[in-house]
Amino acid sequence: MSGILYLIPTIIADNTQSTQLPIAVLEAVRNTRYFLSENVRTARRFVSSLKVHESIETLSFEVLNKDTLPEQIGGLMLPAREGHAMGVISESGCPGIADPGALAVAYAHSHHIKVVPITGPSSILLALMASGFNGQQFAFHGYLPIDSKNASAVIRELERESQQHHQTQIFIETPYRNDAMLGHLLRSLRDDTQLCVAVNLTGQNETIVSKTVIQWKKEPIAIGKTPAVFLLLAAG
Amino acid sequence: MSGILYLIPTIIADNTQSTQLPIAVLEAVRNTRYFLSENVRTARRFVSSLKVHESIETLSFEVLNKDTLPEQIGGLMLPAREGHAMGVISESGCPGIADPGALAVAYAHSHHIKVVPITGPSSILLALMASGFNGQQFAFHGYLPIDSKNASAVIRELERESQQHHQTQIFIETPYRNDAMLGHLLRSLRDDTQLCVAVNLTGQNETIVSKTVIQWKKEPIAIGKTPAVFLLLAAG
Repeated sequence: MSGILYLIPTIIADNTQSTQLPIAVLEAVRNTRYFLSENVRTARRFVSSLKVHESIETLSFEVLNKDTLPEQIGGLMLPAREGHAMGVISESGCPGIADPGALAVAYAHSHHIKVVPITGPSSILLALMASGFNGQQFAFHGYLPIDSKNASAVIRELERESQQHHQTQIFIETPYRNDAMLGHLLRSLRDDTQLCVAVNLTGQNETIVSKTVIQWKKEPIAIGKTPAVFLLLAAG
Repeated sequence: MSGILYLIPTIIADNTQSTQLPIAVLEAVRNTRYFLSENVRTARRFVSSLKVHESIETLSFEVLNKDTLPEQIGGLMLPAREGHAMGVISESGCPGIADPGALAVAYAHSHHIKVVPITGPSSILLALMASGFNGQQFAFHGYLPIDSKNASAVIRELERESQQHHQTQIFIETPYRNDAMLGHLLRSLRDDTQLCVAVNLTGQNETIVSKTVIQWKKEPIAIGKTPAVFLLLAAG
């Protein structure tokens, strides 16, 4: 008998459970007593907020994060191998995307545990939809491997790839460096390259601006320390 | 006064409205009388199924598809410029991703019409989550530019890129060529490359299989003429 691994999305802006999550999320959480997450405290608070379990105390939460070793996955996934439903919850958005959840999913595939992904908010996907850029070809790069010395080189390489393949380039930055990143981008990109900055997606102050670099230079914005996604598309 | 452009996801498997769509979709559709979509008939049927408008007859549906010319967008977007809410609905999943919706979004950005993306099922995102492959770096290529003569060359180039950047490669195929595509992949990829095939996502017969090419060769499957997403990740 083998279990099931639900990939459970969480919210990306505070207090949006009731508007942004489909019923499928509530049903999966209701069926599940064993959870893996990067941060037990926030995962517990999230599950509690859904109000589908009588008591949060009877549930099991274990840590699955970037420090989890491959040899630990078997132990963490034991309930699924014993036939139980388990859930992976991301710190923000969809598990397996820009987070360590993929470790558990890969284990499930190799042990014939059914994997069920569930729809939920993803800042990467929402930003791509809202950018107006090419959604037929795109690439996500996570955090750019940047220090201020080589920032321009990395950004120009992305711009070259974008032009060559007509490919939208998507990346994120740690919030406290958002404004430095925007500065790097405006200094390094060509004037006719299109740049989108999507801030606080699904939140109250959601801000999504797409325009060419030359237009950005005329009307820059201060992003501040809030979650942001950056997208660029070079002119053909 | 400027309007608003909602990016409204639709379902990707029959009759999954009630489980897969968040309330934010219903709220956006309730606020909107003007819709753009690739196919008016299916968009009308979708909006009708949500039961948030008293009468579907009072709503406006216009076509936005791959044959829409840039000079037609201004006319199609007139209601938004006049201050109304408009919605773009994809034929399947999220507008702006692998469909022509991006034309309307780009127009909205250049005319100061607020763009609001809404969470919903995306077969690309669900497949990536469920693959167990790298979700920190990935690229989507739409339909591969393939005829049987150059299929191997295209597939091997993707495999090379995957290995070089440790990047998950994602693509789709027209359903009647799914099984031919799987054949091309098994003939062209290295034995230790990982391949995921995700079929009928969110549907009753959802099937998601991730394994190495050599394992696929031992236990192949017949996909049939159903929507499928293919993902590959080359060994390091």
